[in-house]
Parts: sequence; C-alpha cells; structure tokens
Amino acid sequence: MSSQRRPSADARESDYRILHEADLRDYLAGVPEVAARLGGSPASWSISEVGDGNLNLVFIVKGAGGGVAVKQALPYVRLVGESWPLPLSRSHYEYLALTHQARLAPGLVPVVLHHNEGLALVVMELLEPHIIMRKGLVGGTTYPRFDEDVTTFLARTLFFSSDLAVTAAEKKDGIAAFAGNHALCKITEDLIFTDPYRVAEQNRWTEPWLDATAAAFRGDLDLHVAISRLKLKFLNAPEALIHGDLHTGSIMVTAGETKVIDPEFAFYGPMGFDIGAVIANLLMAYLASDGHERSPGERRAFEAWVLETVESVWTEFSRKFLELWRSEAKGDAYPVTLFEGEAGAARLETERQAYMAGLFEDTVGFAAAKIVRRILGLAHNIDFELIEDPKRRAVCEARSLRLARAMMVEAVSFGSIGAVTKAARDVRDWRPDFA
Amino acid sequence: MSSQRRPSADARESDYRILHEADLRDYLAGVPEVAARLGGSPASWSISEVGDGNLNLVFIVKGAGGGVAVKQALPYVRLVGESWPLPLSRSHYEYLALTHQARLAPGLVPVVLHHNEGLALVVMELLEPHIIMRKGLVGGTTYPRFDEDVTTFLARTLFFSSDLAVTAAEKKDGIAAFAGNHALCKITEDLIFTDPYRVAEQNRWTEPWLDATAAAFRGDLDLHVAISRLKLKFLNAPEALIHGDLHTGSIMVTAGETKVIDPEFAFYGPMGFDIGAVIANLLMAYLASDGHERSPGERRAFEAWVLETVESVWTEFSRKFLELWRSEAKGDAYPVTLFEGEAGAARLETERQAYMAGLFEDTVGFAAAKIVRRILGLAHNIDFELIEDPKRRAVCEARSLRLARAMMVEAVSFGSIGAVTKAARDVRDWRPDFA
Repeated sequence: MSSQRRPSADARESDYRILHEADLRDYLAGVPEVAARLGGSPASWSISEVGDGNLNLVFIVKGAGGGVAVKQALPYVRLVGESWPLPLSRSHYEYLALTHQARLAPGLVPVVLHHNEGLALVVMELLEPHIIMRKGLVGGTTYPRFDEDVTTFLARTLFFSSDLAVTAAEKKDGIAAFAGNHALCKITEDLIFTDPYRVAEQNRWTEPWLDATAAAFRGDLDLHVAISRLKLKFLNAPEALIHGDLHTGSIMVTAGETKVIDPEFAFYGPMGFDIGAVIANLLMAYLASDGHERSPGERRAFEAWVLETVESVWTEFSRKFLELWRSEAKGDAYPVTLFEGEAGAARLETERQAYMAGLFEDTVGFAAAKIVRRILGLAHNIDFELIEDPKRRAVCEARSLRLARAMMVEAVSFGSIGAVTKAARDVRDWRPDFA
Repeated sequence: MSSQRRPSADARESDYRILHEADLRDYLAGVPEVAARLGGSPASWSISEVGDGNLNLVFIVKGAGGGVAVKQALPYVRLVGESWPLPLSRSHYEYLALTHQARLAPGLVPVVLHHNEGLALVVMELLEPHIIMRKGLVGGTTYPRFDEDVTTFLARTLFFSSDLAVTAAEKKDGIAAFAGNHALCKITEDLIFTDPYRVAEQNRWTEPWLDATAAAFRGDLDLHVAISRLKLKFLNAPEALIHGDLHTGSIMVTAGETKVIDPEFAFYGPMGFDIGAVIANLLMAYLASDGHERSPGERRAFEAWVLETVESVWTEFSRKFLELWRSEAKGDAYPVTLFEGEAGAARLETERQAYMAGLFEDTVGFAAAKIVRRILGLAHNIDFELIEDPKRRAVCEARSLRLARAMMVEAVSFGSIGAVTKAARDVRDWRPDFA
C-alpha cells in the first residue's frame, strides 16, 4: 500500500500508531520496493532502533540484500517526552523537503524509498558506512569532500527556491505548502532566538564556570536587540526553502560522500540561517577541538582544516550561488530587462555583490545565534559535551560565546569570512578569568 | 441562499455568470438581508452600472428603503479586455480582507451585506454621499478627517497582522490564506516594479514633452537598482496583511467620514507599500494642483493642506503604530521578556524608533514607485489626466518624476517626512527644460 495518494488529514489521525519492531517487520514486508531491497525472508531481517536525535524513532533494518533506514515521527518531542507534543505532520514536510532537495541537489540527500503520511513514516536508503559528521569532527577526522558538497547543496537548494529562480506565483505556492510546519519553526523561535537570553527552565550550561557569562547574556541589551532582529528576520523573510536545522548532526559523511538528512524543520525562511548553521557548527568543532586534545598540538592539522573549511563554505557557496544567478535567473526578482547592455550587466553584477554582502551579514548573525543556543540553551552538542573535564569544556564554551557575541552584535564589522576565521583564531588564544 | 458555507472551488467554476441588470434584480431579491435593506418591490429598484475602475463591474442599486453597492469580478481585466484574464478568486480575497479590516478598523471600511464566492460577488452598504477622494482632490476639496482616519486604518490593520501582534503560527496561517492571490500581486510586480523602467507596450506618457524623461528612466541604472530592491521586498517581506492598492481612488470620503474600499490586491507584504501609496497619491494631488488652477494662487490653501496631510499621515501613523506596539505587543517578535526593567524598556523603545526609521525608508521608496507608475506606466490617474493642456500636465508630471527619482534613489537621505514635503515644495518651483 503506497500512502502517497491518500487524503492526508484523516489518514493521519486514524492510521497512526507507534511502530515497534514486530509491527515494523510486518509493515515493511508489505512494501514491495522495500522488501525487494532488503531481500530474504522478513524473519531474517535485523531491526534496531538507533535514534539518538531529539525528536523521532529511527530504525536500521538489514536483510541479506541490503539495508534501509526507517524514520517515524513521534507525537511528542523525544528528548522531553509526552509533555511536549509535536505534530506528526513534520514527517510530511520532511518528505516534501527531501523531494525538493533530491531534485535540486541530486546525490546529496538520502534516496526516499517509501513514505506513509498516516504513519508519519519515511523509509530511506541506508547510508553506510556514513557516520554523523559531528562524531567524526569530535574524533578529529577531516572530510575533504565536505565543502564542495555542502556548498553545492546550499547554493542549489537556496537559489532554486528563491525569487531569483522562480516566479512569484510559484514562490507563494511553495510558502503556502510549508506554512503548516509552524510547530517546528516555533521550536527554533523559542530555543534559538529567545530562551538562551532570558531565564528559562530548560536552559542549561556548564556550571559553575559559565554562570557569570550566562547571567551577562541574559542582561546584555545589545545582544537582545541583535537576537530580536534575527528572530524578526526568521519570522519575516521567506527568501528560500531552507533546511532549517543544518548542523553537523544533520550531515552524514564518508571521506568521499556527503549526505544531508533530517529536513523536518524545512520552511521558507532566510537563507543565512542555513549557511550560518553550517559555519556555526564548524566554528564549534574548531573551538571544542582543544578540549579533545590528548597531547599538545595533536589536532593542529584538523583545526587548520576546519577553519579552511569555514572559509570555503562561504566563498564556494557564494561563488556557486552567483554562478547560478548569472546563468539561471528565471525568477521575478531583478529582471534582466532592467539591466541591458554592457553598463547594465556591470551594474547588475555590482548589485549581486551587494546582495551577497547582505546575505553574508545575515549568515554571520545566524551563525552566532546557533552557537549560543548550544551552550546556554536546551539542546547541547557532543562537540562540547564529550569534553569530560567540565572546566576544560567551559573554557572552550566561553571562547565560543565570546566569538558569538562579537559576531551577533557586530555582524556588520565582519566584512569577510577571513575576518570570522581570524576572530576564531584570536579567541582560541583567549583564556577566560576562571581558567 | 447564502454562499458563505459552500465549498469554494467547484462552486466558483459552475455558478459563475456575468450578472446583467435583470439577473442582478432577481438575485438580490433572493437575498433576504439585501432585499430588506432595499425595501419595496424588486421591480421598483433602480440599478445602474457605475464601475469606473480598471477591473470589475460595480452596480448601485437603490430602493425605497436604502441602497447597496454590488461589486462583481470579471474573469479578465476590464481596462484591457478578455485578452488579459484575471482570476475570479480575487473576490474571495477582497472579502477576506474586508472582514479583517472591519474587525480591526471598525467604521473605516464598507459593511459587507452578502458575499457569493461562486459569482465572485460582494454586496456592500452604499456609501452616500461619499465620493472617491481623488475626485475631491482634483476639485481642490480638503478632507479634515482624512489623516486621522487613514492613519487609524493603517496603524491598526498593519500592526494587528504583524509579528508584533500575532504568533508566528497565526501569521503563517494568514500568509497561506492569501498566497493564492498571486495574479493580483503579479499586476503590481509588472506594472509598478518593472514596466515603467523598460520598453513595454502598455506604457504611455504625455508625449512629446516627457519622451526624454521616459527614456532617461529606462536607462537610469541607479533607478533600476532601487526599483529592483523594492520589488524584491514586495516579493519577499510578508510583514503584514496589506491593502495592496491604497491610492486615493480606493478611498471614499465626505467631510466627516473616510471609507477604504477595494482591497482585492490584499496579501501579506511590506507595510511601507500601503503607507507609501497614501503619501504618493497626496504628493501627486499636490503637484497636479498647479495644473487645475484657474487663477494664480487660488488653490494655495488646498495645497498647504495636502502637504500638512502628507506630514500627518506619517507622523500620526507612526505615533499610533508605536502606541499599539507599546500596549498590544502579543506577537512573537521582540519578546518583552528580553527587555525587562527600566534599562530594557528604554532599549526596546530605542529599537522601536529604529524599526520605524526602517519602515519610513521603505515608505519613501514605495511612494516613489507609486508616483512613477502613474506617469510612465499603463494606469494613469485623473489628478494629471484631467489637466487638459497636455504641456501643462507634462510640467506637473515632470516635477513629480523628479521628486520620485530622488525619493527612490536617495530614500535613505530623506530622514524625516518634513524632508519629503520640503522636496515637494522645492520641486513645485522647478521648471523643466521644455516649459
């Protein structure tokens, strides 16, 4: 039974049940394309629940012929429990976004084999031997394909859903198609753009070392203005269909491949939010690296690679995005008929550069917001969490917060990505008072 | 038969027919609330088609007891004909917008008595003895209630549909509800933000006097960058539910009353577009006034009133909008919990002023765009068209274009509304080469 043609709302309510191993085996046995890929008898399939994210169930299913990954949304936030309900419809939006991304950035997202909207279930190819990039970064592994792949993903998914590439009518249809995903947006609005800057029950940080910084952030009105402007942009700027959660835990890698997963936060929002997410998580990997060092300098090459990658994420994204704008501008924005002849072309090119400068400023601000939330908010990341000595961890976190504050409040003064990596290098040598 | 509960899409296709006088009489006789208001027998009702707008049929129906206005959308642009199809769904969006505006700005829009989505028909109270404000302005009439009323309309309809007043979820629902109105948005995108700046068949201007200026505008790359940025904002900034066509032809007035009509262009867009529309049309009334003068100085008091009104449209809008922000900020943007205590309150107030400065800059730019389109584009207005001597008309138009160019290209240099009215006064004394 393929669910894709079924009416959604009723199906969703009546068909949903949380799948346990036995149910899942029976269910997958009834999906020919999945059963064929797994091979052998259903009884021979191995099934294990591996979800380590914050929201969903994830099963790895393996058979004689191959494997699949099964993701099922739960009607609540897994990290918190049933007290925090969350709509199953996010599975629908994830499926929509995966389809969009697969079309625009072929090979850079997992292949979807089956989708059942009623069960809030997506079955995908098993990515093997890929690992979550963040784990690799904690281990000090470099990924030489990453910048090339992620900038292709960013440039193509963002450009081709923007007003530079599509008509206003298509864009409005797209915005409307994702408007219902507001519960997921709300998580971002609260956990990234609000809570870390005020007293909120779910906030946590490395105590007692960061107590003073957390308090300072809660009282820092420059920061509160800056985060409020970013939040307004998040609420108010449907520039493109963004992934919405593009950290290094949403990327699976091998030395030669990059796959972007988990776009359930997708909606039409500001492009800088996605680009900033990638840059923020690389900057955290860089500033956490010190905490994972067992002998002085052992991770120096890794750290140099991380900062080079920060730079190439922006420069390569920017280059590819501009290339698409020059060659594929079929959208309603910046009509070429207003920029004819040599002088017109030159002026449009100048304007493209100005547009990218604005996007860069957004990117720097959003990157900062993504760093702060991982250190002072609810959801932390293993870059820092796996540093066992809490004081040592706090040093890495304090440096990251110092960098993030500067990026957020003085975003406009970071005129280039080189200024960002220089600031990161500088802050790496800074020691907080408590250290 | 009330249509409001009927499923829309099918009804729309199957029920639609263009109503002629006899059909309309029968139809209205079957709508109890309308028949009651008109009074007497249906045969006694007078019906006349009075639509002088660009898009629709408008009937005035009068009976012994009272009158109604009936607006029916045509499946094409009335001004152009069947060769330019336009969806009937605009009547649905007009009805939605009227309902929204009536709730937020009571008394400032006509009361809707009946709506039939299938027929693309809205029946409203007859506004009597109101006249279209633009006609009054051409005649040199002042409207002392206008600034008070229109700024209440602007402040309340814009604020209460913005992220300052509603949750992100409500806002996204609203955006989605109006996303389908893209054919009307497209008219604006083409006729205001694109065509006047390039060769387009439908463009016209007062020849031969404005030939050189029209050509200069088509080659002026500073202007093309400025209009493209405004267009991008129009495509990309769903700040609030805007009227979308708020010129003085969409406002009916008496000395004591103001009613805003015809919101069929409504969608979630940039607030400055509505405020700019009001200001642009007042500036045109001011600069056209010279052309309607029969003896030197006879319209001086009127002209002074127009410029005072330009100033109070901005200052009173701004004051009312800020007052709402201070007292009714229940939206997700600028959470008050980030601005606690005396210092927090002061900082938020500073930020509110910064927000208004940004909105003012948008307003100045959009106002300029609305002026240019009325002089070099398809749809002109009677402010200029009723100046019989074409050369005299061209002088008024050339002054308006000169002002508009400065406002669009140097919007940021107009730091206050006083700077705009000063520039208007100055340009009133400028004589183009041909004069």
